Amino acid sequence: MLKRNRISNETTSLRNTSLSVITSFVTILPVFCVYSYQENNLDVYPPNWWAGMQHAEVELMISGENVADDKVLVSEGNVQIKQSRALDSENYLFVTLDIADASPQELVLSLKDEDGSSRDIHFSLGKRAQGSSARKGFGPEDAIYLIAPDRFANGSVGNDNIEGYKDKVDRSFKGGRHGGDIQGISNNLDYIKEMGFTQIWTMPMLENAMENYSYHGYSTTDYYNIDPRFGSNDAFIELSKKANENGIGVIMDMVLNHIGSEHVWMKDTPSSDWINNYGQFVGTTHKRESLHDPHAVASDVKGFSDGWFVATMPDLNQRNPHLANYLIQNAIWWVETANLSGIRVDTYSYPDKGFLSQWTNRIMKEYPNFNIVGEEWSVNPAITAYWQAGSQRHDDYDSALPSVMDFPLQAAVVKALNSEESWSSGFISIYETLATDFLYGDPNNLVIFADNHDMSRIFTQLNHDKAKWNMAMTLFLTTRGIPQVFYGTEILMGNEGTEDHGIIRSDFPGGWPSDSDKNAFSGKGLSDDELWAQKRIKNLLALRQSHPQLFKGKLKHYAPVDGVYTYFRVVDDTADTSDQKLMVILNKKSVDLPLAKYAEVLGSDVSITRVSDGQIFNASETLSLPVMSANVFIVQ
Amino acid sequence: MLKRNRISNETTSLRNTSLSVITSFVTILPVFCVYSYQENNLDVYPPNWWAGMQHAEVELMISGENVADDKVLVSEGNVQIKQSRALDSENYLFVTLDIADASPQELVLSLKDEDGSSRDIHFSLGKRAQGSSARKGFGPEDAIYLIAPDRFANGSVGNDNIEGYKDKVDRSFKGGRHGGDIQGISNNLDYIKEMGFTQIWTMPMLENAMENYSYHGYSTTDYYNIDPRFGSNDAFIELSKKANENGIGVIMDMVLNHIGSEHVWMKDTPSSDWINNYGQFVGTTHKRESLHDPHAVASDVKGFSDGWFVATMPDLNQRNPHLANYLIQNAIWWVETANLSGIRVDTYSYPDKGFLSQWTNRIMKEYPNFNIVGEEWSVNPAITAYWQAGSQRHDDYDSALPSVMDFPLQAAVVKALNSEESWSSGFISIYETLATDFLYGDPNNLVIFADNHDMSRIFTQLNHDKAKWNMAMTLFLTTRGIPQVFYGTEILMGNEGTEDHGIIRSDFPGGWPSDSDKNAFSGKGLSDDELWAQKRIKNLLALRQSHPQLFKGKLKHYAPVDGVYTYFRVVDDTADTSDQKLMVILNKKSVDLPLAKYAEVLGSDVSITRVSDGQIFNASETLSLPVMSANVFIVQ
Repeated sequence: MLKRNRISNETTSLRNTSLSVITSFVTILPVFCVYSYQENNLDVYPPNWWAGMQHAEVELMISGENVADDKVLVSEGNVQIKQSRALDSENYLFVTLDIADASPQELVLSLKDEDGSSRDIHFSLGKRAQGSSARKGFGPEDAIYLIAPDRFANGSVGNDNIEGYKDKVDRSFKGGRHGGDIQGISNNLDYIKEMGFTQIWTMPMLENAMENYSYHGYSTTDYYNIDPRFGSNDAFIELSKKANENGIGVIMDMVLNHIGSEHVWMKDTPSSDWINNYGQFVGTTHKRESLHDPHAVASDVKGFSDGWFVATMPDLNQRNPHLANYLIQNAIWWVETANLSGIRVDTYSYPDKGFLSQWTNRIMKEYPNFNIVGEEWSVNPAITAYWQAGSQRHDDYDSALPSVMDFPLQAAVVKALNSEESWSSGFISIYETLATDFLYGDPNNLVIFADNHDMSRIFTQLNHDKAKWNMAMTLFLTTRGIPQVFYGTEILMGNEGTEDHGIIRSDFPGGWPSDSDKNAFSGKGLSDDELWAQKRIKNLLALRQSHPQLFKGKLKHYAPVDGVYTYFRVVDDTADTSDQKLMVILNKKSVDLPLAKYAEVLGSDVSITRVSDGQIFNASETLSLPVMSANVFIVQ
Repeated sequence: MLKRNRISNETTSLRNTSLSVITSFVTILPVFCVYSYQENNLDVYPPNWWAGMQHAEVELMISGENVADDKVLVSEGNVQIKQSRALDSENYLFVTLDIADASPQELVLSLKDEDGSSRDIHFSLGKRAQGSSARKGFGPEDAIYLIAPDRFANGSVGNDNIEGYKDKVDRSFKGGRHGGDIQGISNNLDYIKEMGFTQIWTMPMLENAMENYSYHGYSTTDYYNIDPRFGSNDAFIELSKKANENGIGVIMDMVLNHIGSEHVWMKDTPSSDWINNYGQFVGTTHKRESLHDPHAVASDVKGFSDGWFVATMPDLNQRNPHLANYLIQNAIWWVETANLSGIRVDTYSYPDKGFLSQWTNRIMKEYPNFNIVGEEWSVNPAITAYWQAGSQRHDDYDSALPSVMDFPLQAAVVKALNSEESWSSGFISIYETLATDFLYGDPNNLVIFADNHDMSRIFTQLNHDKAKWNMAMTLFLTTRGIPQVFYGTEILMGNEGTEDHGIIRSDFPGGWPSDSDKNAFSGKGLSDDELWAQKRIKNLLALRQSHPQLFKGKLKHYAPVDGVYTYFRVVDDTADTSDQKLMVILNKKSVDLPLAKYAEVLGSDVSITRVSDGQIFNASETLSLPVMSANVFIVQ
């Protein structure tokens, strides 16, 4: 939160002045951080915790002027102080409480300095919401809508600009803030629900008090507070509540690898090893392979893990156990506080590998049915699969990560649709990629997507070809995995001629009160193509909801032949064949296809209904399929 | 062997005539098959065996008119007949001998028919050569020369055409026989040795009595006899002996997946399930992924495994246990008979998967230090690695296969050298492929190659660019693995403008007495470029032999930066640093390279000697490297 930044900016020069000066300085600042508990000039992270967690401890980071040498006492008998430790900065104290036997209560911690003066902190150990531990994370039954909060809808113009935050609204600048916010999402939950999405994944909304490019949210400056330009922690909690009431879960985008360079830790660093490369910018090599490479030199491993993502994103050293705990607790705190249904982890492989194991294990131990998806941007399934729990590995690495983003499939689909059919190109790319699923611990729990916020929009990747777009989207909404759709993809948003992220993340039409001519929420001003696309996604999502084969069914696919790729989703055969199978055929050329060739999966005495027009065929017929088409059939 | 074919051609119509007619017919035929033991009109496979093998049994396939119903008796007490079994044909009998306790001896088997008449077969259980079981297979210390025997050298014009064999010599036809033979290889062992190769892998030389395209050897018509146009079993054994005396091992190319359509089994098939798809041509899908694909339909798995490679190569059904035994014993028989140092298995993944496990396990049990390399033509390391022993797998498949051909690295090197450097192209292809070595049970035991007999020659793949060729060959002769060089690659042979296998496998200059103007063995008539290339390979192979780092050393590579790819081969550090390390730098642009960046592996107080010119640098210097160069340095 900004306040802390200001304090820290000042504390450097104020170290020798009296506390009262600082106190009075603080009081004149606007207080946005409702959740960062501050008392007696001490900040406590996490600001509160819960009794009844699996993990028997909570480690408090207490920050404040000269707090490092303080002695801590706790008021209650069933909470013990297990450890109290200072690092290099005199302004941080790490206090580990043993809460194994603690019931919900309001704790008082007393901090005594060398002079014997004492400061109290009230710390709440709350009662957990019922079912919190057993919460079900997002899964194959869901469809995720990925939203760039700054670019989706501006629900409250009042928070477009906030005093003290330098990056102001400028819709004319592609890399600037455009004003979208939590209220905008909240206002449009109906649209999201009616489209058929059951989860929203919002790009990070924690405070990014950066000078510029703050809109994307990946430069965290406060792990415990929503950026006021998006709203507040309360607004986020309220969004989650309202979404849940509409059958929509909320997936939070978390950044473990780095902070924004304006984070207070860059001004007053808890320890000299808190930030990698001694707090100086050294770019990461992005060579994620080095982590697994038996031939890697140590400098490449270090270059990847310890290098900074970019100069404005200082790289955290999660080997520091206090920082590790901080990040682990922060994730759990948000799950518990905002009733999350999942976490998406940014730049998953970039933090320390050992820490990632710790982090996933701790969270999954608290929430055994939860879901977390890691972003590992590699098109090599051997690399992505490494991180998923249950995958076969060459080493004894203990990953508890339930899901990874399926970048290999994304690349394969684009390649398949943009290339000519031959023995080594075309649909074979998709087939080969899915065949490599043997590497994954759980291929059905991969998050699959046609595009996301970091790459060209799928419509552009497919050269603005509607038929290809339809084939891609049909595939991603019917094959194995958990589909994720990037906002705007449903109305053919593109980024022709540029790869600029600011353009890729353009404003969603209708999200701004001033955008009166085109509104994708109402359909007003959309072209026929855009309306067709929106309807197509809606229909496919409705099909998913009404046909559990699409998320419960096994994928069974036929190796592509002559530009035809056919697959089924099959619920284990029972006596009742009704609604047990669904067939999808993607074909490039106009083709007459005898259904008998699929008898092994289709059966021979069944009929199939084409979803698009309700036409019924029997399994002995020959289908005539038009050029470049995506056909879905329900098997009866 | 041809003789059996003829018999079989006739037996169809002769079934009801007396045996004496057949006998007299046989005697007028030339006898080429010295090793197929025939007595009393009975053929026995294997024709002989050895006492003291690990496996306690040997199963004889006895073929002959109406032999199926015969009863078999054995003369010796320490050999028991464990099983005698006929299948569908009346002309084959499968007799399993228990030889667990047998000493070397000459056995007599008596076959009695229903009328009580008896035929004897003499079967030798020989004494194994000393050290046979402990034989060391080819390994990283070796360099393999891949020879197309028909196209390397014609040592004996006398066997160019053989009566009864339809495919005659025609050097003007690229797909025809050109006359190369075992004597040609034998005559040129000096060249092979002087070049620095320590293993030869010859394309198959077993009988291929096909009407045409018989030169390549992959259409076996007799598993126990060398094609007379290549020589004889004796000539092959003699070649192996002479090669061994020159420090050169012999790797036999074995085909387990299919036979040639002229094989006797196609005329008189032992059982109705001997050939897949009921003996009728159905092409394989070549979709090797289906074997591993969790989403595969059964018909795709069957389509791959049971489909025929091509119409003239009937696909063997190795699920038949008698056929499985036949192929296993045949391999062991050749190892033992010809004193082999290794086996290369053609189309490795195409036969039945369970059989492959059996086959490799049986052979490796007999020869624990042996080496076998399987051809699995996939550029996906997850697929190739699956087959190597010791790899992590998703299933409990038991592969004992020590080595696979490294097709992924071959493709990566070509891609790397033919593409511009960027974050996702250029040397990164090589780096990423080698980084994926974590999938392999033993990356050091992969056979690596720039090209082979089934693809465009490397010089052509690299657009006839000498600098690229030099970089590729330097890499393949200095990185991890067992290098294999295709004959002719050392003199820049190419196949510009065509992918025809007959052109790729062109005649080696100097191998034919009539080729007087150009001789690669003597160097006569070679262009300066060809001489340079030949010298380069020779120097690199000599470097391998004199610097064990290149086969014993660990590979340590640096992620490529700005078109520079640097790696080391490092023997575990000892007090003596001399000759412990070797450094290779491949660079695309002209570059000034401070050696200090490699200090982690290179050390800081060492000097390095450039192999090409003997120039010495110390570790603090900056190297100036010319554009597109491959530099090898010895670290002192």
